[in-house]
Amino acid sequence: VNYQTVLNEIIEEVQPSLTRGKVANYIPMLAAVPATKFGMAVQSMDGETFKVGDADEAFSIQSISKLYTLTLALKDQRRALWKRVGREPSGTPFNSLVQLEYENGIPRNPFINAGAIVIADIVRSRVADCRRALLEFVRARSDNTAIENNSEVARSERETGFRNVALANFIKSFGNIDNVVDEVLDFYFYQCSLEMSCVDLAKSVFFLANGGNCPWSGEAVLNPRQTKRINAVMLTCGTYDAVGDFAFRVGMPGKSGVGGGIVAVIPNRLSVAVWSPGLNAHGNSLAGTLALELLTTKTGISIF
Amino acid sequence: VNYQTVLNEIIEEVQPSLTRGKVANYIPMLAAVPATKFGMAVQSMDGETFKVGDADEAFSIQSISKLYTLTLALKDQRRALWKRVGREPSGTPFNSLVQLEYENGIPRNPFINAGAIVIADIVRSRVADCRRALLEFVRARSDNTAIENNSEVARSERETGFRNVALANFIKSFGNIDNVVDEVLDFYFYQCSLEMSCVDLAKSVFFLANGGNCPWSGEAVLNPRQTKRINAVMLTCGTYDAVGDFAFRVGMPGKSGVGGGIVAVIPNRLSVAVWSPGLNAHGNSLAGTLALELLTTKTGISIF
Amino acid sequence: VNYQTVLNEIIEEVQPSLTRGKVANYIPMLAAVPATKFGMAVQSMDGETFKVGDADEAFSIQSISKLYTLTLALKDQRRALWKRVGREPSGTPFNSLVQLEYENGIPRNPFINAGAIVIADIVRSRVADCRRALLEFVRARSDNTAIENNSEVARSERETGFRNVALANFIKSFGNIDNVVDEVLDFYFYQCSLEMSCVDLAKSVFFLANGGNCPWSGEAVLNPRQTKRINAVMLTCGTYDAVGDFAFRVGMPGKSGVGGGIVAVIPNRLSVAVWSPGLNAHGNSLAGTLALELLTTKTGISIF
Amino acid sequence: VNYQTVLNEIIEEVQPSLTRGKVANYIPMLAAVPATKFGMAVQSMDGETFKVGDADEAFSIQSISKLYTLTLALKDQRRALWKRVGREPSGTPFNSLVQLEYENGIPRNPFINAGAIVIADIVRSRVADCRRALLEFVRARSDNTAIENNSEVARSERETGFRNVALANFIKSFGNIDNVVDEVLDFYFYQCSLEMSCVDLAKSVFFLANGGNCPWSGEAVLNPRQTKRINAVMLTCGTYDAVGDFAFRVGMPGKSGVGGGIVAVIPNRLSVAVWSPGLNAHGNSLAGTLALELLTTKTGISIF
Repeated sequence: VNYQTVLNEIIEEVQPSLTRGKVANYIPMLAAVPATKFGMAVQSMDGETFKVGDADEAFSIQSISKLYTLTLALKDQRRALWKRVGREPSGTPFNSLVQLEYENGIPRNPFINAGAIVIADIVRSRVADCRRALLEFVRARSDNTAIENNSEVARSERETGFRNVALANFIKSFGNIDNVVDEVLDFYFYQCSLEMSCVDLAKSVFFLANGGNCPWSGEAVLNPRQTKRINAVMLTCGTYDAVGDFAFRVGMPGKSGVGGGIVAVIPNRLSVAVWSPGLNAHGNSLAGTLALELLTTKTGISIF
Repeated sequence: VNYQTVLNEIIEEVQPSLTRGKVANYIPMLAAVPATKFGMAVQSMDGETFKVGDADEAFSIQSISKLYTLTLALKDQRRALWKRVGREPSGTPFNSLVQLEYENGIPRNPFINAGAIVIADIVRSRVADCRRALLEFVRARSDNTAIENNSEVARSERETGFRNVALANFIKSFGNIDNVVDEVLDFYFYQCSLEMSCVDLAKSVFFLANGGNCPWSGEAVLNPRQTKRINAVMLTCGTYDAVGDFAFRVGMPGKSGVGGGIVAVIPNRLSVAVWSPGLNAHGNSLAGTLALELLTTKTGISIF
Repeated sequence: VNYQTVLNEIIEEVQPSLTRGKVANYIPMLAAVPATKFGMAVQSMDGETFKVGDADEAFSIQSISKLYTLTLALKDQRRALWKRVGREPSGTPFNSLVQLEYENGIPRNPFINAGAIVIADIVRSRVADCRRALLEFVRARSDNTAIENNSEVARSERETGFRNVALANFIKSFGNIDNVVDEVLDFYFYQCSLEMSCVDLAKSVFFLANGGNCPWSGEAVLNPRQTKRINAVMLTCGTYDAVGDFAFRVGMPGKSGVGGGIVAVIPNRLSVAVWSPGLNAHGNSLAGTLALELLTTKTGISIF
Repeated sequence: VNYQTVLNEIIEEVQPSLTRGKVANYIPMLAAVPATKFGMAVQSMDGETFKVGDADEAFSIQSISKLYTLTLALKDQRRALWKRVGREPSGTPFNSLVQLEYENGIPRNPFINAGAIVIADIVRSRVADCRRALLEFVRARSDNTAIENNSEVARSERETGFRNVALANFIKSFGNIDNVVDEVLDFYFYQCSLEMSCVDLAKSVFFLANGGNCPWSGEAVLNPRQTKRINAVMLTCGTYDAVGDFAFRVGMPGKSGVGGGIVAVIPNRLSVAVWSPGLNAHGNSLAGTLALELLTTKTGISIF
């Protein structure tokens, strides 16, 4: 497969879809991103990086960060982690309080906001300087020491994130948060405000396509069994309440963010990242989802 | 991989788990099946069938039949089908009416009871003698003309299946069933009462591992794209409200039934069927799930 | 208070509201009733009947009948009844299946459809010819032997009432219906198809304003304690998911039906019935609710 | 009716029930109250106050305060208020987030926690020093200038009230809170920490039995129409998810608190307050509810 040719075709074909989605507007800095931005990067097994469009431009990774914190939490915790957060698809929108209420404060999975807040609490309990630990993890995975967070985004999210404050306090009322709520949320809003490019993102999740090994750092991030499992959780829970549709159309484990980014992997084949700010009704990048569908269709590569 | 060796190991290792599950007891004929039954069969790409234990004994396939009717419905209908039934995991138990109510009579996916009833209605509208069509489909897929249904099981399900009658009438109240409710349910209870062995079952779903092609009949049952998609739906929706856990532990698209059977596939590698009547809390075979987990662990084969 | 003067004023004042509601159209015979019909009748403690407009015209009483079957069931059963049906407001629309699911087949109260179906089952178990028993009860309470049911309405409801069939089968699946579902539903659709005038209705519930005693039959229908309690259940549960609003605006225990009728009582003062076919968003007569609000405002009579 | 005789009988009859309830233990100061405390006071229309047991001992009024803040909010706002909070019974436990989610941040009624928080926000927007305004209102209604709040209770509630923090932030996320969340919650926890005796409480709600007029202050607190309506809301919403049962057994509009207090009125007859710390499963005083039931049974007074 010539990935560069495929990427060149994809960027042509998605053009009409770029403006059909709706750019997130709950904070000014996300609302200001032009809907016409599009980037895509593929990291192949033989070490090559293919890219197209705005693939080198950093953007707000938002919920994609949940994949990194879950990895950090899994490295230490393993089984105990799954007593505090489930691994079933939620079946309802990503910030629902209903399920928390019926399920006594145990979030359905680590990729809905509630679950990611519990994961943030777990990481915070383990690591003294959790912000620094996360930043170093992301930089090592992406082989890019220039990655930073955007503190204005973090502050805006903090000021308007009443629903996340509600979620965190609700979980705390069930005893499933150990730290002070405000400190957990500070870390959570920090992780969401990291800024990375498609190239950074594709490299950062390459270890999930590679049995847990990160080539540029030489680190065994997870063992093969953990790697398979995190991919399984991504497939069944990674794209909010559209996981079925995403699996049906795209056929890759993936994780999306409201900034318009999506990362995905095909084990032993490739990792990929795409960015298009316009979102579909489920909160996933509209043209990004289409681009990934085109990638599997054109290459014939799929886990199914 | 020597599948026979693997199967021989698995049957040893699952013995202590056989009696830890709970045999379905809502109808007498299911309740009468000994919990100690265990069979498993693997169909490999090179045409060989491996088997162990009670792999030749026919049992009640129950919800596994939903895979066959979905295939029948997909052959004709394609896109229109997905307007009448969704393809998202349900997040709630398999016979829930709650979601139907919030989602106006559109079942979440074709593998919960509500969705299978709509699929039965679709098949019934297309095929004059839908029972015969289904039986012939199953016999051709399994290369076994001796497969029959158990009419006593069908009658018992009919007499005690108040919740399915409720589901069907509820869907009808939203206009999402075209035929007379009783006729749709007759077909639905018929499909659940089919009896097949592990060998039959493994062969019957082999086309899903084989790009849609059924070797023994020479038929292209589905095209490769449809095949991938049905596998995606199985992975995200095939095991009731435990799809996340099943993907996490087993890592294969699979479909289970309350008779204790589970079928699963790894595309381009194998199809497999397992039978152990004791169920876990989610209604999936307890030792059967464990056996499939052992299969992926021992062979190192997984879609992730 | 001169009730006749009050009624004469009310019929004038409600005229602009008659066509603001929506006439029930789920069966042809209800849809055919002109929205401009309006009748109202008051039965006072001193034995006088006041009436205005179409107060002598019989119409389909629908859910008002739930008051009669509850009274019949209470006469025999008392405490045991409240184990099979609750007495709390539902908080959700009148034919919701959600609450049944969370509360294991125990309907919230006897005035939602699910609860009335359980009450119909109770009456059916006690009385051989339950239709006849109900008809005789209603005729005696109304002092009118000409009251009949409309079998065409019953048949239409039967043919289109998939949701009620769903409800009944769902309750049966929890074991909270003793008789054959179809027979219970036959009785339920029969009771809904009774036809009575405002004068009939006002007289029929007079015993609830009169400590349980029915003057024209000389019968003690209920004892004073039972009477108070049935009034309490009417107030908190009698008008679907608008009980709060009805209590707030009208301030009387009342029971409505989709035929546009409402009955209400003020203990030791009066009973009243009103009819206007146009319904508000909650399924209660729009102008009928307004007329009752005007009655309490103009007379200054209220339980609060 | 000789109320003193009735009260003397009641205190005898409730003794065995005092220890059957469960004293609230979510904060230490409530947990420390002996379950054997019992007081009751009746304020009659002719100005007499009857009392028995610990009727002069002040205790934490908790949710009874919601009646005072609703009255304060109603005095100014009237119709606009009912756009920000409903007046329907909730059908679910008092601190549920589920309904808020389905109903876009509009609490079901002013007596569930969510609704009371919105009412607190309304009062705070109208009155500069809302704590002082509330305290003066309560003192004037009770004719007792010694009433105070317990700041230790307020602080404990603040420190452990994660669920109320969640509720308030969740409502804020829908835009239905105008002030800063922490300031609204400070007022809310303040109101809950007021301490009053049964005599204070019975007198404080006497205006609701008296057409809105407060005899000792000479003030027309509400007009008769507003008074009727607040009584209606109390009846349909005042006792959490047990309003149906409370109306059925007690037959009076009432408002309870987790401190074990209940106030109730029979318009034009009396106001009453009872205190017994042991709560039933719905969070209402167990022996207090029984005492009120005995009062209506023994006196034959009821709104029904």
